Amino acid sequence: MKIAVDAMGGDHAPDAIIKGAIEAAKLFNGNVEIALVGNGPLLREKLSHITYRYRPQSVSIVEAAETIEMGESPVAALRKKRNSSLVVAMDLLKTGQAQAVVSAGNTGAVMASALFTTGRLEGVHRPAIVSVLPNQKGITLLIDVGANTDCKPINLLQFGIMGSLYYRHIFRCPNPRVGLLNIGEERTKGNDLTLEAYRLLSESQLNFVGNVEGQDILSGAADVIVCDGFLGNVILKFAESIVGLVSSTIKDKVASNVRSKLGAFLLAPAFVKFKRKLDYEEYGGAPLLGIDGVCVICHGSSSPKAIKNAIILALRIVNSGVNNQIKYQLQAMNTAVPVTENHRVRV
Amino acid sequence: MKIAVDAMGGDHAPDAIIKGAIEAAKLFNGNVEIALVGNGPLLREKLSHITYRYRPQSVSIVEAAETIEMGESPVAALRKKRNSSLVVAMDLLKTGQAQAVVSAGNTGAVMASALFTTGRLEGVHRPAIVSVLPNQKGITLLIDVGANTDCKPINLLQFGIMGSLYYRHIFRCPNPRVGLLNIGEERTKGNDLTLEAYRLLSESQLNFVGNVEGQDILSGAADVIVCDGFLGNVILKFAESIVGLVSSTIKDKVASNVRSKLGAFLLAPAFVKFKRKLDYEEYGGAPLLGIDGVCVICHGSSSPKAIKNAIILALRIVNSGVNNQIKYQLQAMNTAVPVTENHRVRV
Repeated sequence: MKIAVDAMGGDHAPDAIIKGAIEAAKLFNGNVEIALVGNGPLLREKLSHITYRYRPQSVSIVEAAETIEMGESPVAALRKKRNSSLVVAMDLLKTGQAQAVVSAGNTGAVMASALFTTGRLEGVHRPAIVSVLPNQKGITLLIDVGANTDCKPINLLQFGIMGSLYYRHIFRCPNPRVGLLNIGEERTKGNDLTLEAYRLLSESQLNFVGNVEGQDILSGAADVIVCDGFLGNVILKFAESIVGLVSSTIKDKVASNVRSKLGAFLLAPAFVKFKRKLDYEEYGGAPLLGIDGVCVICHGSSSPKAIKNAIILALRIVNSGVNNQIKYQLQAMNTAVPVTENHRVRV
Repeated sequence: MKIAVDAMGGDHAPDAIIKGAIEAAKLFNGNVEIALVGNGPLLREKLSHITYRYRPQSVSIVEAAETIEMGESPVAALRKKRNSSLVVAMDLLKTGQAQAVVSAGNTGAVMASALFTTGRLEGVHRPAIVSVLPNQKGITLLIDVGANTDCKPINLLQFGIMGSLYYRHIFRCPNPRVGLLNIGEERTKGNDLTLEAYRLLSESQLNFVGNVEGQDILSGAADVIVCDGFLGNVILKFAESIVGLVSSTIKDKVASNVRSKLGAFLLAPAFVKFKRKLDYEEYGGAPLLGIDGVCVICHGSSSPKAIKNAIILALRIVNSGVNNQIKYQLQAMNTAVPVTENHRVRV
């Protein structure tokens, strides 16, 4: 088993990537090889300074001369930089030399290269990014959080199916509750997209619990929440920013008086727990579901811990066999649901 | 000056409404009359139990035999219940007997009755609901938060104009920064709706600061954030639910140990400040902009304080003359921007 890691992608590359990869390699105990893809001389030099112990054979280097920068236009960059660390990593996946790719690089470029290189799983109209949000009791998945800006109802149904299978296999829950993100509980509420998606979801084999609203996202009302990638992206970034707002509001107040200062000191462990609950580093990265391979997309600002967790997640996804399940279920669905004009695929 | 208050609308009606109205009346010191619209005998009986002092002539009762319930279908309810407190209040507005309406009733019914009774301001394609969100430095307006589930680019441009004028007149800011809620900073990012709305906004006379993302909603990056009503509604409900999540996460931890308990006690004032910052009660209600009149929509669960603040807000909107400004600017804009097929009005 080999996992290809884009060592040059991300705000803190390659240092954070290398450290995270080695921490993961230590955990895997030699059963998994991690291929660091990037500037060979630089990576070798950085590795030579690593002081913690790891099995040298569990980390390899694959040469890639170029790097796609965070601000580059994804499609243009992919065309121009055939030797970039991202493209070389994806090629390893496509040729079966690696079973998964992990990248903290330019998100648009990661999505596009995954789509162009490995292609979609049979039956999938549009791949989608799954993200984890904490709730009062456990976690909720939000799908899609940014792969698709404009969606059709059939896409939302497929997101529900992919999200449900992912939840079942990765979080060991036999029958995840799937909700549709909407602006009212009743099936008559919503926009053109969600009104029709509601019908498709309610007629599916999913454990569909109906519409969920904004206040239900963090309440645990559903295990998997389906929405278009535009809405999901705004919600996800908004949620991530809240930790900062809570901290700074409290800090402003705290700075001004001794009572609050002492209170904050005593309460610090509880804050840490709250922060950790909302902290993306704990969840590693967000898988791109629906492609013919395993690809975990990390935050540009990923720390070594986030990279380590993303690599662990990639391994779990490979081992879970969830991609086969998605292919099987969507093939079955495509025979059942006629793809009408309205459901045309648009890539 | 008279403000019509739907005394029967809301989860805590009529008690919370009556109390809020009287608290506002006390502040107004006889200069404004508040008309409580609803079941006359019930309202008179409730008023007779009010022990605080207020000028009796500042609060009147207008009889309305029926009540629209929270769960009713708005359009059907409006057709059937011509004598409902909401419809009677709107009639007072239409006939010029009142200058504003405040209601905590069925939101869909409030919007529909405002639209059917008073109609739109000249030049307005779609009215929109404005909501206040706190940010690190002050407040940000989000427009629309639920009046329009499916929008055209021209609607978003008009929301920007209405929101900017509202911000300028109500929050005394000469040139509010208007941002478009989107999934990336660059103008090439977004869905079909926002890509075109970006173009319209950037060509307008507004102080358009470009795209803002989810993490910017509470950062103060813009004074007015424009989005379609579906997205705005999900965001608003999500934001409101966060106060609860923060409290309960900390409380869970706190319940389990003495150190945290003491910390929480000492930090209580800071928490109160944080809660208040996100608390909708402080902002009273959300105005429906673009109708030919002033209408403030309150949360169904409004407390007396929320009702009082909503009435104060309604008075400020009337006094600001913002509706005339909206009419004037949108008329000017409609000559400048051709309404093409793509921008067709859809009500």
